[in-house]
Amino acid sequence: MRATIMYRAGDVRLEDVPDATIVEPTDALVRVTRACICGSDLWPYASMEPSESGQSMGHEAVGVVEAVAPEVRTVKPGDVVVMPFAYSDGTCAFCHEGLHTACVHAGFFGNNGMNGAQAEALRVPYADGTLFSLPVDEDHALMPSLLTLSDVLGTGHHAAVVAKVAPGKSVAVVGDGAVGLCGVIAAKRLGAEQIIIVGRHADRIGLAREFGATDVVSQRGDEAVARVRELTGGFGVHSVLECVGHGASMQTAIGIARPGGAIGRVGVPQEETMPASLPAFFGNVTIGGGPAPVRAYIEELLPDILEGRIEPGRVFDHTVGLDGVPDGYRAMADRESIKVMVQP
Amino acid sequence: MRATIMYRAGDVRLEDVPDATIVEPTDALVRVTRACICGSDLWPYASMEPSESGQSMGHEAVGVVEAVAPEVRTVKPGDVVVMPFAYSDGTCAFCHEGLHTACVHAGFFGNNGMNGAQAEALRVPYADGTLFSLPVDEDHALMPSLLTLSDVLGTGHHAAVVAKVAPGKSVAVVGDGAVGLCGVIAAKRLGAEQIIIVGRHADRIGLAREFGATDVVSQRGDEAVARVRELTGGFGVHSVLECVGHGASMQTAIGIARPGGAIGRVGVPQEETMPASLPAFFGNVTIGGGPAPVRAYIEELLPDILEGRIEPGRVFDHTVGLDGVPDGYRAMADRESIKVMVQP
Repeated sequence: MRATIMYRAGDVRLEDVPDATIVEPTDALVRVTRACICGSDLWPYASMEPSESGQSMGHEAVGVVEAVAPEVRTVKPGDVVVMPFAYSDGTCAFCHEGLHTACVHAGFFGNNGMNGAQAEALRVPYADGTLFSLPVDEDHALMPSLLTLSDVLGTGHHAAVVAKVAPGKSVAVVGDGAVGLCGVIAAKRLGAEQIIIVGRHADRIGLAREFGATDVVSQRGDEAVARVRELTGGFGVHSVLECVGHGASMQTAIGIARPGGAIGRVGVPQEETMPASLPAFFGNVTIGGGPAPVRAYIEELLPDILEGRIEPGRVFDHTVGLDGVPDGYRAMADRESIKVMVQP
Repeated sequence: MRATIMYRAGDVRLEDVPDATIVEPTDALVRVTRACICGSDLWPYASMEPSESGQSMGHEAVGVVEAVAPEVRTVKPGDVVVMPFAYSDGTCAFCHEGLHTACVHAGFFGNNGMNGAQAEALRVPYADGTLFSLPVDEDHALMPSLLTLSDVLGTGHHAAVVAKVAPGKSVAVVGDGAVGLCGVIAAKRLGAEQIIIVGRHADRIGLAREFGATDVVSQRGDEAVARVRELTGGFGVHSVLECVGHGASMQTAIGIARPGGAIGRVGVPQEETMPASLPAFFGNVTIGGGPAPVRAYIEELLPDILEGRIEPGRVFDHTVGLDGVPDGYRAMADRESIKVMVQP
């Protein structure tokens, strides 16, 4: 079958690889009907050390279950399913607490040797705990939005939950990538009164406004902090969604948080440290977040997609077949595209 | 009048200074009946640059109101009052939210030129918002415990609240100073099932056990992390109270937090940065806290002191008059004393 393999920074190839198969008694085999390229795929695309075997890429997918191993109970061949970016057993203490990304058996697709979703098919461990069956057929018109349940929508929602977004609150979203844009959707959905998007790409800002952003801050660093404070009576926002992961964006996030406010960070940290003291400590600002337990959020978010109240699928502005994946990486890295959908 | 002035690291003197007076129309003048030396006073005691004018020291006191300015409404001469370590107007948005340490008019006693409480008397700005009148006379037997409402008990409680301590949770308290010991009291009071004290001073550990600690970890660094994990089924604790402020203690706090857990930090950070990535991010660990809004907590904690359910005053193991204050600093710095009470 065909799959996307990254061999080093900037070197992504479509290759013929052995067909995905069932290995463990809790596995499912999923034929991928839609996948996509993630902002976090751009980190290795920028910096991966050369590897002879390469890494199979992709961790977001919707697909059709082709086969299940003997112990699988809740999904069956023919089911159209969302595949969260992390697999989880669904039975451990952390899964019961809704933190599936801390599952004692958790693993991440397209990472650390695990097979990736930018492919014709893939093996899904712990199928019962991982996959979520959708009540639609595989070519449903809402498929782009349903695909965002596998990562970006749930991740933006997680940032908003950790940042304690609630009715009437002021919110800033740092980063105008697909996750930031889904953060805007999530903040609006949770009742935020003011939603400030901190970003500078015209196409993304336009979409952010359509998703519910009330203000745009296109400055950076100290100027961005000053501008957000101006927009919030001098104090900063109650909730900050940090959707980048750079040290500079975390510094901005801390600078614009109101005393007593909360930062939900979902951008994978690219630096070893973050500021410990002023103003996070003296302002009693809470910093939380991490890999989003998107599996836990599907049930809550799905009805809003199916009933048309939110349209996160609009973050996809390019669609490619598997052959187009390498150019999709390039387009996202060059900021030509917000997010690329892959239709194998 | 007599007051404590610090001139440089290690140089604390009792001096004759001009009497404290009322300056602003919202001030009260308080005669100090009990004050104390704080762990945070030891930071400048270790590192303060030489100053010709010096800094008046002390930020914890119980006293008697001697006079009030014309606009003061809720406290009156003769009232026995607790003075929180920060003053606050009681009327701004942050005070209404219970975050008095972020009051738009907040200031800290014994800091940045403000008069300190290790003195015969002091001027208290925003008396209505700051002081809390106690239903006892000035020599009540519970005075040591009541004095802890001005800082250490409320600070330990704040750490526990931010760390989301709740019935049945596992808790670790990093630091066995007076704040850490009050953190143990707070964790027990909030229903924690397991309370691990991370510390190594026999006298303090003994008191921690009496306050409710169920386990003691006397190792440091990676060994402390390993031991706490052993005590918690391998996962770490739900709640960590970081009551020191060193980079090493924050590193320990992050290392022993369970995925999805929360750290409440109240030790003033002595380092510029803290770890951003593993395991705080990948474990979805929340880091919050800062200067405790102790004013907000007095009403909740006071009945437990008055009715004898908690005895935070036991953290005081030495009492001195004003002349004994310099030696009190030395005794605390040398870890001869847990916490020194000052009876002017």
